Amino acid sequence: MPKTTLPSAALLACCALAAMPALAQDGAATPYRSMGEILEDSAASDWRRPDPADTLYLELDSGRVVIELAPDFAPRHVANIRTLAREGYWDGMSINRSQDNFVVQWGDPDGESDHPKPLGSADAKLPAEFDRPGKGLDFHALPDPDGWAAQTGFAEGFPAARDPDEGRAWLAHCYGMVGAGRAMEADSSNGSELYVVTGQSPRQLDRNITVVGRVIEGIELLSVLPRGTGPLGFYEEAGQRVPIRAIHLASEVPEAERSAIEVLRSDTPLFDELVEARRNRRDGWYKRPAGHIDLCNIPLPSRKVEGSP
Amino acid sequence: MPKTTLPSAALLACCALAAMPALAQDGAATPYRSMGEILEDSAASDWRRPDPADTLYLELDSGRVVIELAPDFAPRHVANIRTLAREGYWDGMSINRSQDNFVVQWGDPDGESDHPKPLGSADAKLPAEFDRPGKGLDFHALPDPDGWAAQTGFAEGFPAARDPDEGRAWLAHCYGMVGAGRAMEADSSNGSELYVVTGQSPRQLDRNITVVGRVIEGIELLSVLPRGTGPLGFYEEAGQRVPIRAIHLASEVPEAERSAIEVLRSDTPLFDELVEARRNRRDGWYKRPAGHIDLCNIPLPSRKVEGSP
Repeated sequence: MPKTTLPSAALLACCALAAMPALAQDGAATPYRSMGEILEDSAASDWRRPDPADTLYLELDSGRVVIELAPDFAPRHVANIRTLAREGYWDGMSINRSQDNFVVQWGDPDGESDHPKPLGSADAKLPAEFDRPGKGLDFHALPDPDGWAAQTGFAEGFPAARDPDEGRAWLAHCYGMVGAGRAMEADSSNGSELYVVTGQSPRQLDRNITVVGRVIEGIELLSVLPRGTGPLGFYEEAGQRVPIRAIHLASEVPEAERSAIEVLRSDTPLFDELVEARRNRRDGWYKRPAGHIDLCNIPLPSRKVEGSP
Repeated sequence: MPKTTLPSAALLACCALAAMPALAQDGAATPYRSMGEILEDSAASDWRRPDPADTLYLELDSGRVVIELAPDFAPRHVANIRTLAREGYWDGMSINRSQDNFVVQWGDPDGESDHPKPLGSADAKLPAEFDRPGKGLDFHALPDPDGWAAQTGFAEGFPAARDPDEGRAWLAHCYGMVGAGRAMEADSSNGSELYVVTGQSPRQLDRNITVVGRVIEGIELLSVLPRGTGPLGFYEEAGQRVPIRAIHLASEVPEAERSAIEVLRSDTPLFDELVEARRNRRDGWYKRPAGHIDLCNIPLPSRKVEGSP
């Protein structure tokens, strides 16, 4: 009789019940732990709580999407986004685009008309922030080769890449990353129009557009949105757009209404073990561990702070 | 005033109006054509029409998903799937799982109970078909490095990989690829339980599970399905499952009711030009062409056959 069979990539990641012994490179038997086991055994210090001043709440009818901003990569854009959120720029606006295997995007649907919504005290024009100096950045590099960049890894908790020869670093377009839409000119974004990656990592956008952060909770509220049938996945009718109740900074929301979320630190031995567990799956389901991991295949788990509502 | 700004990865791919001159490596000016322009200029011979005997129609309330099967990679599974479809095995069944950034999966929700749906004349047990000999396969290789495999490219119109040293080739887990779910044993799949990749390419599954084909139309009907809240994205309530009206072979459907779809050939000079246009975007929007493309970032366009309903 057929059993309900599963592509169990995640099954054993999250639910394996027993550690499997595996041979380490030096030949000694070391215990193999799945991702679920590693997380279960994590210490409080393996987690970090994003700064409420760098946390955006995108409030939809379906729930809250939580975005962590990346001021160390895009300081001017993040400052502008804070201003826009503080002044309620997006409140009552809409998600206007959902393109399959690419992005969801929101902003002023009348932005190109002759009556765009005023930006308030936010700057209309900002410099492009496509990359930054590699110096001064705590970059936790992966040993795995990458076709798009000289080196990939994590910085400030975000998937990132860098080129040591050029001395530059930048955020990588992985699933859930948030960027600032722009027109043809490099400096034509100001953070009022934002998109989230909801498909195969479009790394060709790296260093071509300003990335401002990452969705740390609620991405599934965006990834399921009906695909727009217009060019680029824009909704063709105003009625198809998805209402945005509000976008606020967590720091501006009463504490009792905040989402108490922690994100796994990406600069710890525990995180290295997790990456290795994904690089070489040694549980019983996998017959051939890949021996490789792509930056954008590494999960960055988040969790509710214990004792929070 | 702010314009509606776009992350225009696809904008210029599909809608650029003018060719931009670009310098070829030999220094001579050669015309650059975007993907849209290349497709517009394609000849009939650049397209192929999948064999109706290798084409599955997954009929949902929301529309039809078209899947091309890959008998040259998984002959036994594809034969079994043909039998299951012919005998209406999936008709009235359901999609039972939608895990964000991973897969959508369907099959018998009672498969693990003591009253699973009988498989009819299909085989309950099949050998694993994780890979195949590289010999005898027309493999159109990409020059781009890949961390997961010695070489990637296209074979029989599918994204694939191979290891010349081992002499093996296999289908790659890109967005839209369809595989046969299995339990712990390598040979525990029979094609009755199928999944579709709807997230970042889970290439760690390559050579660990039998891949049977690719969605060539209608993937957006699957990728928007509400994510299941149970473990692995399974729907927790029977009422949340997504009904499957039927899964039939195109060859068993009256000709007037078939979807007349062509897929771009992946073994032509035109396809090579398209890949290069994605590897190095030379339109005005991109400030820094990537100089690289990942196998799973290469689109495999399909289109309605002209004159078809």
